[in-house]
Parts: sequence; structure tokens; C-alpha cells
Amino acid sequence: MSRLADYVMSFLEGIGVSDIFTVSGGGSIFLNDALGQSKIKYYCCHHEQAVAMASEAYARVKGDISVSLVTSGPGGTNTITGVAGCWIDSVPNLTISGQVYLGQTVGNSGLRQLGVQEINIIDIVKPITKYAVMVKNPNRIKYHLQKAIYLAKTGRPGPVWIDIPADIQRMEINESELEVFVSDESSVIVDHNLNTKVKKVVELLKSSQRPLIHVGQGIKISKSETDFMELVENHNLPFVTARNANDIVASDHRLYVGRPGTYGQRGANFAVQNSDLYLAIGTRLALAQTGYASHDYARNARKVIVDIDQTELDKKTISADIKIQSDAKIFITELKNQLSGMSLNTSSWIKKCQDWKKRYPAVLSEYQKQKCPINSYHFIDVLSSILNAADVIVTDMGISFQGTHQAFQIKRGQKLFTNSGFAAMGWGLPAAVGACVANQCNRTVCISGDGGFQMNMQELATIMHNQLPIKLFILNNNGYLTIKQTQEHGFDGRLMGCNQETGLSFPDILRLANAYDIRAVRLDNQENLKHELKQIIDCEKPIVCEIIMDPDQQQIPKVLNSKNPDGTIVTKPIEDMYPYLPSEELKENMISN
Amino acid sequence: MSRLADYVMSFLEGIGVSDIFTVSGGGSIFLNDALGQSKIKYYCCHHEQAVAMASEAYARVKGDISVSLVTSGPGGTNTITGVAGCWIDSVPNLTISGQVYLGQTVGNSGLRQLGVQEINIIDIVKPITKYAVMVKNPNRIKYHLQKAIYLAKTGRPGPVWIDIPADIQRMEINESELEVFVSDESSVIVDHNLNTKVKKVVELLKSSQRPLIHVGQGIKISKSETDFMELVENHNLPFVTARNANDIVASDHRLYVGRPGTYGQRGANFAVQNSDLYLAIGTRLALAQTGYASHDYARNARKVIVDIDQTELDKKTISADIKIQSDAKIFITELKNQLSGMSLNTSSWIKKCQDWKKRYPAVLSEYQKQKCPINSYHFIDVLSSILNAADVIVTDMGISFQGTHQAFQIKRGQKLFTNSGFAAMGWGLPAAVGACVANQCNRTVCISGDGGFQMNMQELATIMHNQLPIKLFILNNNGYLTIKQTQEHGFDGRLMGCNQETGLSFPDILRLANAYDIRAVRLDNQENLKHELKQIIDCEKPIVCEIIMDPDQQQIPKVLNSKNPDGTIVTKPIEDMYPYLPSEELKENMISN
Repeated sequence: MSRLADYVMSFLEGIGVSDIFTVSGGGSIFLNDALGQSKIKYYCCHHEQAVAMASEAYARVKGDISVSLVTSGPGGTNTITGVAGCWIDSVPNLTISGQVYLGQTVGNSGLRQLGVQEINIIDIVKPITKYAVMVKNPNRIKYHLQKAIYLAKTGRPGPVWIDIPADIQRMEINESELEVFVSDESSVIVDHNLNTKVKKVVELLKSSQRPLIHVGQGIKISKSETDFMELVENHNLPFVTARNANDIVASDHRLYVGRPGTYGQRGANFAVQNSDLYLAIGTRLALAQTGYASHDYARNARKVIVDIDQTELDKKTISADIKIQSDAKIFITELKNQLSGMSLNTSSWIKKCQDWKKRYPAVLSEYQKQKCPINSYHFIDVLSSILNAADVIVTDMGISFQGTHQAFQIKRGQKLFTNSGFAAMGWGLPAAVGACVANQCNRTVCISGDGGFQMNMQELATIMHNQLPIKLFILNNNGYLTIKQTQEHGFDGRLMGCNQETGLSFPDILRLANAYDIRAVRLDNQENLKHELKQIIDCEKPIVCEIIMDPDQQQIPKVLNSKNPDGTIVTKPIEDMYPYLPSEELKENMISN
Repeated sequence: MSRLADYVMSFLEGIGVSDIFTVSGGGSIFLNDALGQSKIKYYCCHHEQAVAMASEAYARVKGDISVSLVTSGPGGTNTITGVAGCWIDSVPNLTISGQVYLGQTVGNSGLRQLGVQEINIIDIVKPITKYAVMVKNPNRIKYHLQKAIYLAKTGRPGPVWIDIPADIQRMEINESELEVFVSDESSVIVDHNLNTKVKKVVELLKSSQRPLIHVGQGIKISKSETDFMELVENHNLPFVTARNANDIVASDHRLYVGRPGTYGQRGANFAVQNSDLYLAIGTRLALAQTGYASHDYARNARKVIVDIDQTELDKKTISADIKIQSDAKIFITELKNQLSGMSLNTSSWIKKCQDWKKRYPAVLSEYQKQKCPINSYHFIDVLSSILNAADVIVTDMGISFQGTHQAFQIKRGQKLFTNSGFAAMGWGLPAAVGACVANQCNRTVCISGDGGFQMNMQELATIMHNQLPIKLFILNNNGYLTIKQTQEHGFDGRLMGCNQETGLSFPDILRLANAYDIRAVRLDNQENLKHELKQIIDCEKPIVCEIIMDPDQQQIPKVLNSKNPDGTIVTKPIEDMYPYLPSEELKENMISN
């Protein structure tokens, strides 16, 4: 016999969980006690929103499911933004929440609340989880854990949720009597026409002059990075990456063309728009990637899309010649097999792609000429030049997200990621906590803005307490830069709620870090930037570095909508990025049209 | 013709909305622009959780619906804890969220996301709102606004939600063509047997020796404070208050017996348990009020319960002799009419009640004898002695909630409140922001703990920016006091995630406030406490005051569960509070049993 709460922890230990993020609370009190007594290490965040976000980042670094433990009521609702992020970006994550005694739950009574700090969290998280259940029968705890974890990790991964009433947490159970979950292996998704469809892909590849592969997180989820690299290298296939896969290859790889998208790289966008065969593997092709003019996306190519989620294949913003519902690894393996020994003549196309990559860097040479303040793209460029292959880098949102993914030069082995789909401001700092823990408490870099930083800065306490060697860079642009620039562009310059003049103030970042006993420095000019950044990243302790940038610095290049005289909005195809190239130059870059 | 976003703001102006809380964002960009151009003042919070909580407190102070404006995706999910608080505590609140273009919403496609930073927020908030709708047809905007506001304010109030896609926000509409909402007045709740039922109540009152009225927020919602006071004063009826109504009467009122509950006042609990007629009006009788031994609650009384929500009347934790589904004002008016001219002989019972009230104060005289550090009950006692009738006081959770409501001596006209049902840590500071704005930016007091403070401290920036004269007192007890004491009591002293030794650190509060350019002081002894507190509350600017208390100070009195030797839990009736009275004394206080 053992207490159910203890069983939960030993079950998690058994599947290899070594760390859990939590905020303790009354509704989860037995679970917290069990966690405290287990071999699993726990990290106390200072808000449950941070628990969920740290957990997400942990899963991304580990490449495995992560676990959050929170209490009833607000403990659960506080996590929702983080859980929604896992849902949209396909991250396997288990939240275990405490709940009031089963007899005090509202059930179907129609009451708004019965137990103290109660809410029916399952109803609320159902739309954003693959499995969400309240444990009512203690003998089903194993079943629910097994099923939840199976679903979180299988097919298209995502978050799952198990809610455990306090009286159930403390019940004694007999492990041998527990019901078990048996997965229905026939439910594993396999495209039965895979062989035939891949044959067609091979035919298209053979006749293609300008093939381009676009890979996304599916490569990571299916752990097929090596297979993929073998595929492209054996057959000289140029490729680009989606936002959740920007770190799968060194940026200077000879076949890598870069990162397409609305806030992408010009060269990569040209490659997509000029390809005659476009093969997307494991990327959902979000609008931020395809642009709002999605019908114009890869418009000169035959399109093959491989995704594990049929709804993604069927969505209206994408039209494909061949749709393959498959795990990325299964598809890549089959394609490798069928292509085996075959050589494709792509050398002039590779040259063209590399030419674009060189000709249109995200970081312009003029950026380094300014002395003061700091250009954020130049900063990212210098920072990436001095980071090591073992570093993990996460970002917050706005320019810290888009700018970093545009400018950062990845070294092989580095991890760089952001929650790209939900993109919640404030995600960066708690994500750095989770990433650092997953990274064995080794150096972890976080790039944030001053606006987003405020949204979860309480996690400085988590960093301080655990002495996590996080290097937090805060791009100070006096407010919400992306909002401000959207307002300047689309509202005749009418600003609202984006800077000090329009309702927002921010604290002194150095003094704030100091309140947490975290060292902090401010950099405001580029003169000695590399040297100064080196000192910061070499510091063994946590450190906060404020980067003073021009609050009017443009976020470029980007795909920008424009307005017709009648007010209707014109959506641009992704090759036509702002600042606009001379039309002659744009035309020259378009091989087909 | 006008832009829909502008119409929304002029509609809100038209119904008297003068302030809106917001965080600007891309998905709500037209609404933000319209708000910026309207006559409505806007307050930029620094996290949407704070927007919702500020909004709730604003509604409570104003006694009217409040409005939040947030962006798509995380902008909406960040508010959920605050909205759930409004749901459970019956606060009328409208959230307007921006959304991606209608054509980019996932709808029923099964996709996890289509538009940028999209989520189907309506699905998520439906379980915690009275009305939640996405506006798809611009000509229905008036209908949705009217219906949402009607529902938020009618019957049992609560939150409502309107989600507006960005392309709908910017559409031109013709106001004269807009569909309108006509409320079905027949849906207004009236108990058709009200007259007969009140007759029975009158009969019970006439034969009662020890009648007690328990009033809750229903009194405030129906704006029947004056009627209620006339009722009790005309007929010498002693009464107690529920947590959301502790401020409806001066604490020293001759008929007022206090605040019953698990963290209540002993005297009030004795009054409830000894009453022979118990009449609850507009309080949902939460378990925190009745105790977990709810069958023992008011066990010597005939019970009459008046509530506007039939599901509350029918809930299993309450048994009543007479249940009346009615608005509090309608019921009180009818009862006043039927009692008119009748005199009830309650003088000895009033004397008994006042005797309890005097004999068992929450603030014990021994508390003032200690020199250092500060006893939190003594602090509340001194603070309440020097605050004015015009002050608004809000609290965070844990001891700042329970201890304040136990110890605070209300002056007539003061407002003191906390979100008592959902009781989310971190609620206090943003609530103070909302309360202060509703209080015409006059002095507002917030009492928080060091744990809860961390959860929304970014709102110091909102205070600083708007120079809101908030006096923020932070009870520093080195962590999560309530959790720690629960663990000490129930887990043989095994602690986890509640203080520095078990995983939690906190920043230096003074330096933190200083980072926001807010003055801060630390008080750590009682010697000159009144004088020092007076200086703090007389300071015209915002100020943070850290109160150093003993991290082992008990939260007493309270109703505590105990364990049988076999491990089963014994729930105590509310008269038997910890620290336990000698059994003789307990017996003496129980007139019946």
C-alpha cells in the first residue's frame, strides 16, 4: 500500500522524470509533500504562469515530456497561457493540479464554486490539451498517467492535464490492483500510400531544377535530425527552416538557405518563392511563415507537404500537390531509401541560394557603424559570434524574438528557440529557467525586451535562489516596440499604450536586478561591445545586462501590408519585403515571376 | 458611418464607462486606437492578469460594471484567473478581446491555430462567464454589447466576454442599422410565493429568542445597504457579515456581532451556532464560512436562506427550512413591510452577542506587548484605528486576507474587500490599482504578503506611472505562511516550497520599490508603530511599507481539522476554534448544545 500522491511521484521517477516545476499550495498539498520526499528535484517558481513556461522550455531542451505541479483554482488558471503555448507549438507537457476534496467539487451542479479556491479546471483546459481528466477513482491513477503521457508524446505532441482531488491524493492504494492503460497501437498514424507517394516525390525531385526543403519542429519531435542531414547532404538538397527548427543546423552550412517568413530573411524568402519543388516536412506553415498572401507562397513550385496532423494538411491557407500524413522520421527514412544512390543535379541552384544568403544578410554592415545606442541586430550578431556550441538561447517576444531569429548565427549543437505560435510576452525569462535546468544548470542565455521582461520578472527570484547561470539580456526600447511601430505605420502615427508618453512606465532594470542580488550592467554603445559581452557571458553567476537600443530602430526586413487608396489592405507575397528593393532588383531575383 | 471600434467606445461612454484597463496589442489594435481617441481614460497595466484584477476591484468600488480591453491569444488567456475571480464572487465585468481576422480564426476546423497569436478564447472562458461571444457580424455589435452588459449586471452578476476580430474592429458600420437586444423582462427572477414565505419568516422571527441575520454581497449588489440597516435597527436584529460584506457596517455597531467563518471571529461563530433562527441574505455560504462540518453549521436554528441563485439554494452543503430565491432588496423590502410597527424582544440576545464580541476579540491584548518583530494582527488593529472613513482597503491572500478581515475595525463608509472565493495570490496589488482609480485616485490601502506580492509586482509600474496614492503594506513572513503552517500541522513538520530552506527566495522589497522610484520603508518593531504608520498613510505619494513579522506567527483563531488515530480527518464545527478553549468555557458559550 502506498499513498496515491507518493505513487504519482514514483511513477514519474519510473519514466525518467528528474525535475518538476511547481508553486506549492493547499489544494496540491499531498502531492507537494510527496514530491518533496521523492528523488525528483523540484524548482519553485514564483507564479504558476512561469511554472508552465519553464516546463515547456525544459521539454524542448530535453526532448521529452516535462511536468508541472500546481494547486487548485488560481494555481491551474495561472498556467493557461503557458499550456496554450505547448498546445500550439506541439510540446509534450503534463500538468498535475491539486483539487478540493472530490465531494466538494461542483461537478454538474451548476454552482460557480463549492470547495475553497475551487474551479473546474478540466472544463477550461479541455480545448487546449490532448487529454484532461479529474481523477475520481484512485485505482485509475496509473491508467490516467499512462494514457496522458502516451497521448502527450504520441502523434502530434501536446499538453495533457491530470487534476487530483486532495482526498484522492492522500488515499492508500495497492499498486498491484491499479488499472493499466494499453495503447491501441493501430491508432498510430501511418499513411498506407507512403511508398507510392514518396515515389511521386522522387519523380518530382528528379525533374526539379530548384528543389527546396522546408523543415520544422517535426524533425525534432521525431528525432530525425541526423536522418534529415544525411538526406540533404547525400543528395545536395538545399533547405530552409521553420521557426521551431532554426537551430537544427549551423547557419553556415553549405545547403542551408536560412529562415523564411514575414520576419524572416530575404534570401530564404527568395529561395521559397523561386523553388520549383517545395517540400515541407513537419512544419505547420503558420501565416507568420507563409505571409498573409498565403496563396502566393511558393507559388512557382509543385508542393509536397508532410505533416503528422491531417487538419494541418487540410487547412485552407495551404494548397499542396501531394499531402502526406506522416511522422517526419518515417517519411525521411522512406525518401532516403528511395533516393539511395541517386544523384540530383542541384549545384547551380545551391549556388543561387547561397548567393541570396550572402547578398541579403539580416545584419547590415551599416549597423555596426553606429556608436550609440546599440543596434539590436548588431548586438545579436556579436553575441552569437561569442557563444559556444553548448549554449542554450531562448528569447522573449517582439524584436527579441524576430530579431534574434533573423540575425543569430547558429553553431552546430546550440539550441535556440522561442514559443513561436502563441508568442506570449513574458515567456522568455521563465523559459530560460526551464531551459537552464534541463541544460544541467549550464550557461543559458535569454534575450528579452523591457516590456516582456516585466510580465514574469518575479522569476529573477527563482534564478537567484537556484543560482542558475542565466545571462539575461534586456533590449530596452522604452516600451512595446512592435505595437508602437504598428501604430506608427497603420494609424497615422497615433500611439496608444506603447511607451511612456502613452501610458506605460518601466522600472530601472539595474536596480531591479539588484533587489534580487543579481549583478546587472548596462551597455549603451557599440564601441567595445564584443569585449563587454564576452565578460558578461563568461561571468559564472546569473547576470542581467540591459542593452540600450534606439526606441525608433526599425524591425527589418519584414513583410508589410500596405493600404489601397480606398482603405483596403494589400497583402504582399513574402519575397517583397520592407524596406522594398528597387523593382529592378526584385525582378532580377525572381527567376520565374 | 463609423468604425466599429469607435462605435464600441462611444457605446461604452454612453452607458457611463469612464475608465478602462488595458494592455495594448496587435490583435486589439483598432480597439486600442479607438480607446485612445475616446473620452474614456485608459490605464495601461503591465500584465493582462492585472488588467482583469484591477477591473474587478474597480467594479466593486464603483458598484457598476467595469471594462477590460486585451489583445488576442495570450492577452485573453492571461486574464483568466482574474475573470474566474469575478465569476465566483459575482462581479459584473466586461472583457473585450481583440482577435485575428475572422477568416484566420480556427473555427471548427480542429486546427490548434491559424492566425498569428490566435486562440479560440471563447471556448476557454465559456465555463466562467455569463456570456461569451465572438462578433462575426458587425451589425450585431450593439446587440452583443447590450446583451453582455445586461447579463453581467442582472440576476447574479458576473463576467462577460466579447471577442472582436481585427477586420471586424475596423469595419465601417451604420449605427442606425444595428440590431438591438431587447431583454426578456419575464426572465427577471421573482419568487411568486415571496409574500407567503416572508409571512412565515415573520412568524419565525416573532417566536425566536435568538434570531441572527447573516448578510453577504447580495446586499451590495442590490444596493440595499440602507434598507438592510433600517430593517435591523428598527427591529433590533443582531447580524453578522459574510466576507464580501464585512464593510457594510461600522464594526462597533450595537447590533453587529462580527464575521463568522473558519478564519472568522469566535464571537460571531458563537452567535451563529447559538441562534435559534438564522436568516442568510445574499451570501452563498461558502465552506470557508460554514466550515467543512457544514451539517453542524447553525445547527440549533431554523434556517431561512435568501439567494438570487437557485443552484446556491439547492446545494448539498446547506439545508434550509425556507429557501427564497430573490434579489436581496426585494426580500428586505417585503420583510420590512411585513414587520412594520412590530417590536421584537431581542435585548438579552443582543447583550449576549455583544458580550461574545467583546470577550473574544481577534486582536489579543498580548499582541501589543511584543516589541519586535511586528504582530500582524496588532498591525492591522493600529492601521485600522488611523484610517479614515473615505479610505478603500484591499488585501492579498493568506494572512493578509484572513488576518485583515478578522482584525480590521471598519469605520462607516470605508470599503474593505478581497476576492474571497477564488482568492488568487497576487490579487491585492492590481486590485489596489483598480480600486484607487475607482476611488477618484484618492488614498487606497493594500495589504499583501511577500509571496503574493511577487505574483503581480509589475503593477508597481502602473502605480508609478499614474502616481496613484496607494499605500502598499507587505507583511514579510519569508514565504508562504499559510502553506507552511498547513505543512507543519498536517505533515509532521515536513516543509516543501514554502520558505527559503525549501526552495523559495524573495527580493529585497525596499530596493525593489526603489527600482520603480517608489518610496519604501521597513518597519520591524512595535514601539512607535502608530506614529510611523500615520506618517506613511499621510504621505501623499505612493509608498511601500514592509512589515517584518514573525514567520512563525500563528494565524488564529481558526477552525482546524484534526486527525483520528486511524488517520481519518475530523472536521470541527465552527464554534470550536483553535486555539481551543477549555472545554468548560466552550460549553458555557453554547446555550443549546
